[in-house]
Parts: sequence; structure tokens; C-alpha cells
Amino acid sequence: MTNRLAAWGVTGIPEIRPDDQLGEIIAEACSGEPNGPLVDGDVLVVTQKIVSKAEGRLVAIDASDPVSHKRLVEEEAVRIVRRRGDLIITETTHGFVCANSGVDLSNVERGQAALLPKDSDRSARRIRDIIRARLGVEVGVIVSDTFGRAWRKGLTDVAIGVAGIAGVVDLRGTPDALGRVMQVTEVAVADELASAAELVMGKSSGIPVAVVRGVDAAWLRESSVRELVRPPQEDLFR
Amino acid sequence: MTNRLAAWGVTGIPEIRPDDQLGEIIAEACSGEPNGPLVDGDVLVVTQKIVSKAEGRLVAIDASDPVSHKRLVEEEAVRIVRRRGDLIITETTHGFVCANSGVDLSNVERGQAALLPKDSDRSARRIRDIIRARLGVEVGVIVSDTFGRAWRKGLTDVAIGVAGIAGVVDLRGTPDALGRVMQVTEVAVADELASAAELVMGKSSGIPVAVVRGVDAAWLRESSVRELVRPPQEDLFR
Repeated sequence: MTNRLAAWGVTGIPEIRPDDQLGEIIAEACSGEPNGPLVDGDVLVVTQKIVSKAEGRLVAIDASDPVSHKRLVEEEAVRIVRRRGDLIITETTHGFVCANSGVDLSNVERGQAALLPKDSDRSARRIRDIIRARLGVEVGVIVSDTFGRAWRKGLTDVAIGVAGIAGVVDLRGTPDALGRVMQVTEVAVADELASAAELVMGKSSGIPVAVVRGVDAAWLRESSVRELVRPPQEDLFR
Repeated sequence: MTNRLAAWGVTGIPEIRPDDQLGEIIAEACSGEPNGPLVDGDVLVVTQKIVSKAEGRLVAIDASDPVSHKRLVEEEAVRIVRRRGDLIITETTHGFVCANSGVDLSNVERGQAALLPKDSDRSARRIRDIIRARLGVEVGVIVSDTFGRAWRKGLTDVAIGVAGIAGVVDLRGTPDALGRVMQVTEVAVADELASAAELVMGKSSGIPVAVVRGVDAAWLRESSVRELVRPPQEDLFR
């Protein structure tokens, strides 16, 4: 593992609209960054909201009508995991368990809701490929979203799509500091990178992309967010 | 929020033993760091394992006897949340929901198990106070541990004790980038900081302390890990 990590928010990303070429826009914003150009091995963390907007994953909704929102949440779900009052915890078609199937009314125009991208791994790969083509650097890309957790208060950002960066790094069998074989240490590095990026993006400051530099080179490999999704049959909590 | 964050592992922390003065040891290691001295506003993330060792939270265990481990796990629990085969998910006396009540056999001498600190907020405050006294800087301190999650594979580091750094930052009511009032955004910044720190510590490299620099000054305040613990009666998953 690396001994030093840096993370910063990428400024200068404009409001994203359907059919915008997100990879091109990010490549351009990164080129003009005061923190300097991207380098091989950087990881870009891109929030779901701008990916959904660029991919046109916006639907009309009557925000004053709770039934309209509820219907949309159910349409995006394959399973209702829990329900209490207005809160619905669902399993999405992707296998994510989150509030409201990820249907989001914040930071979108009134009268619209943003749905999760259909395939955020593909979205991440597309951004990675455009960055490679435009800037000649090989980066990892994480599409992140803000999810709640069981048992703990507060939200954290997690990965919902990855390209060129591991979801989970398996340290099972690596000797611990005392030379004993470790029991189980599969670290969700893509989720930890998404959380680190969230700290510099900020929900209300409108910075939807961050760069994380200094990531262990061994983590930069082909992967899929499926590494992070626990299959229902292995899960004790749905 | 800040626009740039840096994190690095603190080298030169020796093997910790019961009755070691952990704050003194960390202060000394930080003074000799190649990354330079601590400054006001830095956040120190200290892994639970060395806090437990310094506080003598070690008990004898026959590692070859599963019953011995199981009994210990049950003693440290106030509630068994789930059980499947050898896996026991419990609620600890602190309110944490985690595997095996946090009882840990890795990175401790054979024949011993490390229990969670009795009060990790107090442990964090003690380290913070010693850093202030020895080095004249005001830092935040997070005691971190590695927990599993419902629904997602892979472990992430979270905060089990805090001093001088918020557990959860409440952004409810802060206008989003389009000027609309946000619905709910309570961000678990202490957990995200613990996760960021984990990326530079590494389970097998024996670096048990990290520094995170560039944390939003508004987050540096008195707090308690209770901000992060969802009370059982509010929790849909136990």
C-alpha cells in the first residue's frame, strides 16, 4: 500500500445536461486544474448525479405528490427490503440496497427525479476511455453515490460503478505484522476511495468530481462493482 | 468544505504493550515524521488494536478451541443480531454492530485476543490531550476499527471513538447547488476519515496511525461516537 494519498475536488465542471459528453467535460476541467494535470494511476471519483444527468436518466415527477415518488421508487426496485412511514429501503436492479432505489430529487430541476445509471461500470469505463484518448493517461474511475447504512447514523459515499480500479482487495492469507496468517481481510477499497473523495466534494458546493492520487498500483486493475455487491443468498440482512 | 485533503501513515510506531503511554509514543513518532510536524487541525486516526493493547484489553484465549472464542464474543455482546455457522454478528456494549463483538485474534500474540476499548471516546481524548501538551497543536483524534457491512462485500474502517472531530455533519437544510433545500444529508465524516486513513495504513504493513490534513475547520468540534451509533429502536436491521 502507498504511504501518502491526496484528494481534491475538480473545479470548473459546468451544470451537466442530457447528452453532454461527460468524459470530454471532465478531461477539459482536469486540464485546467490548479492542482495540475492528471497522471497515470490517479483515480477519478465522479458522483452518480452528473452521470445520470449526462445519460438522460431523468424522469418527470410531481414532487408535491408522494404517490408519484413512491411509484417510481417501486418501479426501480426488485425487492422492498424494509418500509417505515415514508422511508423505503429497496434492492435495486443492480443489487444495491439503499433508500428509495436511489431515486433522487436533490440537485435536479424541480419536477424531475434522477434515476441511477443503468450500468455504472460501463459509465465509468466510458469516462476512463475518453480520459485515455484525450489526455493520454491511464486512470481509474469510480462512480459514487451517497448511501445510508444499517446500524450506523450518517451517510457515506460508496462506489456504484468502477473501471480500472479494484472494488475489493483480498488480503486473506497475507501475514499480519506478527507473521501470523490473517483470518479475513477483504478491504472495500473502492468504497473507501469514494468516501475519501466525498470529504473534498461536499454535498452543497456543487463539486461533482474528485481526484485521488497515490493509490496502490496493485489496486489498478479491471474490475466490476459486482465485487462490492453481496448476493442476497449470502446476506443476513434482507 | 476543504478542496484538498492529504493522508499518510505515521511510521516508527513500535509494537505496543499494556501500560504503554500511547499518546506519548504517537507524539514522538509524529515529531520524527518525514512528512513534517503535526499542525493545528490535523486529524489523527489510530487503529483500535494499539489502543486496546495499550489499555491492556487483552485476554487469554485458546485459539484452537472455538468454544473459548465464542464464549468471549458472547460476553462482550448485549445482543446477538445474527448467527450463521461460525459467524456471529453482535451488538456490543457500546452499541456497535459488528462481527464477533470486535474480539480480534489478528495482530496479537498467539493465545491472546484483543477486546474493544471500554470507552474509545475517552481513549481518543486522552491521545488528543497528550498531543496538545507535548506538541502544542490542537488535533482531532479518531479511534478506528474494521467492520463489515450489511448488503455490501468487503470491510471498511469506521470510527469507534472520536475527540475534537465531528462524528456526523448535518447538512440538512443547506441549499443544494440549484438553490433548493436539501432533504437529508447527514454525512458520517468520522467514518469517511477512518476509511481514507485505512487506505494509507494497510492491514499487513503494521502502520497503526495515520494523519489526515485539510479537514474542514467546521468539523473540528467536541463530539462523541454516539453521533454515529443508531439507537436500536430507530434501526430497521436488528
